[in-house]
Amino acid sequence: MEAPSTGTPVRVGLLGCGNVGAALAVLIDEQRDDVARRTGLSFQVVSVAVRDTSIDRGVPVPDGAFTTDAAAVVADPDIDVVVEVMGGIEPARTLIVAALENGKPVVTANKELLANHGAELYSIAEAAGVDLLFEAAVAGAIPIMRLLRESFAGEPITRVMGIINGTTNFILTKMSGEGTSYADALAEAQDLGYAEADPTADVEGHDAGAKIAIIATLAFGAEVVADDVYLEGISGVTAADIEAAAHLDHCIKLLGVAERRGDEIGVRVHPTLVPNGHPLAAVNDSFNAVFVEGDAVGEVMLYGRGAGGRPTASAVFGDLIDAAGNSARGHGAPIGSLERARISPMADLETAYYLAIDVDDRPGVLATVAAVFGEHNVSIRSMEQSGLGGEARLVFITHRARESDLQATLHDLRGLDAVRSVGSVLRALGD
Amino acid sequence: MEAPSTGTPVRVGLLGCGNVGAALAVLIDEQRDDVARRTGLSFQVVSVAVRDTSIDRGVPVPDGAFTTDAAAVVADPDIDVVVEVMGGIEPARTLIVAALENGKPVVTANKELLANHGAELYSIAEAAGVDLLFEAAVAGAIPIMRLLRESFAGEPITRVMGIINGTTNFILTKMSGEGTSYADALAEAQDLGYAEADPTADVEGHDAGAKIAIIATLAFGAEVVADDVYLEGISGVTAADIEAAAHLDHCIKLLGVAERRGDEIGVRVHPTLVPNGHPLAAVNDSFNAVFVEGDAVGEVMLYGRGAGGRPTASAVFGDLIDAAGNSARGHGAPIGSLERARISPMADLETAYYLAIDVDDRPGVLATVAAVFGEHNVSIRSMEQSGLGGEARLVFITHRARESDLQATLHDLRGLDAVRSVGSVLRALGD
Repeated sequence: MEAPSTGTPVRVGLLGCGNVGAALAVLIDEQRDDVARRTGLSFQVVSVAVRDTSIDRGVPVPDGAFTTDAAAVVADPDIDVVVEVMGGIEPARTLIVAALENGKPVVTANKELLANHGAELYSIAEAAGVDLLFEAAVAGAIPIMRLLRESFAGEPITRVMGIINGTTNFILTKMSGEGTSYADALAEAQDLGYAEADPTADVEGHDAGAKIAIIATLAFGAEVVADDVYLEGISGVTAADIEAAAHLDHCIKLLGVAERRGDEIGVRVHPTLVPNGHPLAAVNDSFNAVFVEGDAVGEVMLYGRGAGGRPTASAVFGDLIDAAGNSARGHGAPIGSLERARISPMADLETAYYLAIDVDDRPGVLATVAAVFGEHNVSIRSMEQSGLGGEARLVFITHRARESDLQATLHDLRGLDAVRSVGSVLRALGD
Repeated sequence: MEAPSTGTPVRVGLLGCGNVGAALAVLIDEQRDDVARRTGLSFQVVSVAVRDTSIDRGVPVPDGAFTTDAAAVVADPDIDVVVEVMGGIEPARTLIVAALENGKPVVTANKELLANHGAELYSIAEAAGVDLLFEAAVAGAIPIMRLLRESFAGEPITRVMGIINGTTNFILTKMSGEGTSYADALAEAQDLGYAEADPTADVEGHDAGAKIAIIATLAFGAEVVADDVYLEGISGVTAADIEAAAHLDHCIKLLGVAERRGDEIGVRVHPTLVPNGHPLAAVNDSFNAVFVEGDAVGEVMLYGRGAGGRPTASAVFGDLIDAAGNSARGHGAPIGSLERARISPMADLETAYYLAIDVDDRPGVLATVAAVFGEHNVSIRSMEQSGLGGEARLVFITHRARESDLQATLHDLRGLDAVRSVGSVLRALGD
């Protein structure tokens, strides 16, 4: 530990000391002098609330900083800013509320909490006149929150699309590059520590769903919660889908999408065909990216690490400097009180679709199948047949169609004699 | 024109009314109510200084707003914020200094001015306690300035690399996709209005050089000016180079690079071989991107439109909202007084290189050529021969080497009997 640098001291209380908390303590220590020189603020972690104080975490904080009494940390008048990196809803929520009500700015990386109780917390922060910042909660090192709050303040955002789960992007990249099956790619992700033993939260889209709810709330200024998000994961994506997509010059990515539909907001997470020329198609491995579309700004994409102790700690530290600076100047930058968003039902989605249908290979089948599409106003953009005889498969990409029409088409296709099975149905970017 | 919305009125004086100025006036008018609702600020363009008031510009500003007296606009006590979109060094510099000294925040899109006199202006803004913001000066809709000022405040940036000139990126994309020659691609860019009749500022790297000087200044907190930047344009890049690069799974991009070398800063603009898997390789057509490398944050890339009236106006409007908000709260966010950067000489650069050498096709030539590389400590990563006899060409990619050693190698290669000519020499990303 160095002696405190010159600069206004900022005493930080840390709730939780896992990967991100430990990396933050190291970063604050390493960068203290540089940051003091640039910002006039000298940060010092003075308290760290953990469940077990007997573990040696090897982080550069003063002797005696560790405590099991988190409530005392958020009440301590000697603490200027609170960083919550413990995760989960409770006790994080109660602690953050207490910190805000005690006039302390809070920086959090807690996506689960914000995706479910964000609006309540934003409103409490506004009433208290202090900052609640959470860049690290969504897409780690990618500064999407700041941009939605600040750069695009004069800009009506029309759509945000993100590759916001590194685990699934790693799996899809593996499947795409090496023709690996979903099961093998998942196993490799688990071996490398990218996926957990129970991968449900990642592969079924829950993690991405929480993040897109937070993004939608900021982008459109109305409360969107995790339960509003339509979820479809990647566990049904097959090597054959990826190959067929590649043949059509597309890749498959798990996208979180938040978009305006009139005065409603649509929010969804699902595997999506992305044209290879699109910037999102070049986002590989465990990287994240967020693609923002606005009326005036056009298309803007942010790319970077979505997770990892140091990248996430860097995002927390950026927020910490903001929060402490705003606090010293006597004002926060609150999001304020938000109304509930009107959520557009999934049936009203309009997008392009990819369908793989196993059929009997005999004359007239394509005409019969195509007629079903036509009856439901679903227009076909391209069709390819692969295989012959009992292996015959038709792969379609449609023009933009309504989800309800597409579902009606699927229903009728399943009733056709010549259709042996309807395989994957994926949404696609494009017209 | 609508009646002014509720919200604190912010009266904007506009210097210049070209594409960006006109688009800004429209955007402010369109978004007035939304922005007032979100920020509590109601923007109104009240004065527009132009050279000729007789032109009908069809922009939504009050009758009588147009004036030829720019000095009166920056002195007018009824004007809260000044936006400078006239370009050029003078009279822009004098007007901005006057506005700042009169306590008015200034938003500018003037890269030429900032790349030559930025440090002086930042210092004047700090002394006056008001904002000087300039997101639109570099890479239009890409919020790189904000991120360097704010998000990465706790982060030591090690390198910034940007595709920051849309014209040259369009030309290189054309050459790459369609095997077009440089001359034909330039002519097409001129036809489409992407390149000017005299394309020198774009194709020889001056425009990118000014932008990377501004980026370097912000990223490293020390004054870097346009003259510090090593410049090499794209007019020497041939269709054969692009084909050879593609064969080696690279594309060629004009990059502006600013990087730390010890306590010195290197700044350069030159055509660069970029591996196809790198995110910068997917930035095509007239799009821009800025790739930031930091110790903790890892790699972050921002992608978007680098130019165009509306995207640029959107960036100006974001700054305007910031500047007016900071002003209402009684403080700016100054960059402050900067020392001159210590500029690292180009001879000290270490990077990989691509070289195309036309040689006599006879036994022993490769050994002779390779010996010259070895004598100067330049290590060869890959070599390919194309053509035979009088058309024989050797294409090399080296490992990282010092620029001075590479130049010595070139000097000696040119002296070899077997070497008919040394063609293109390009720097490459990689080890």
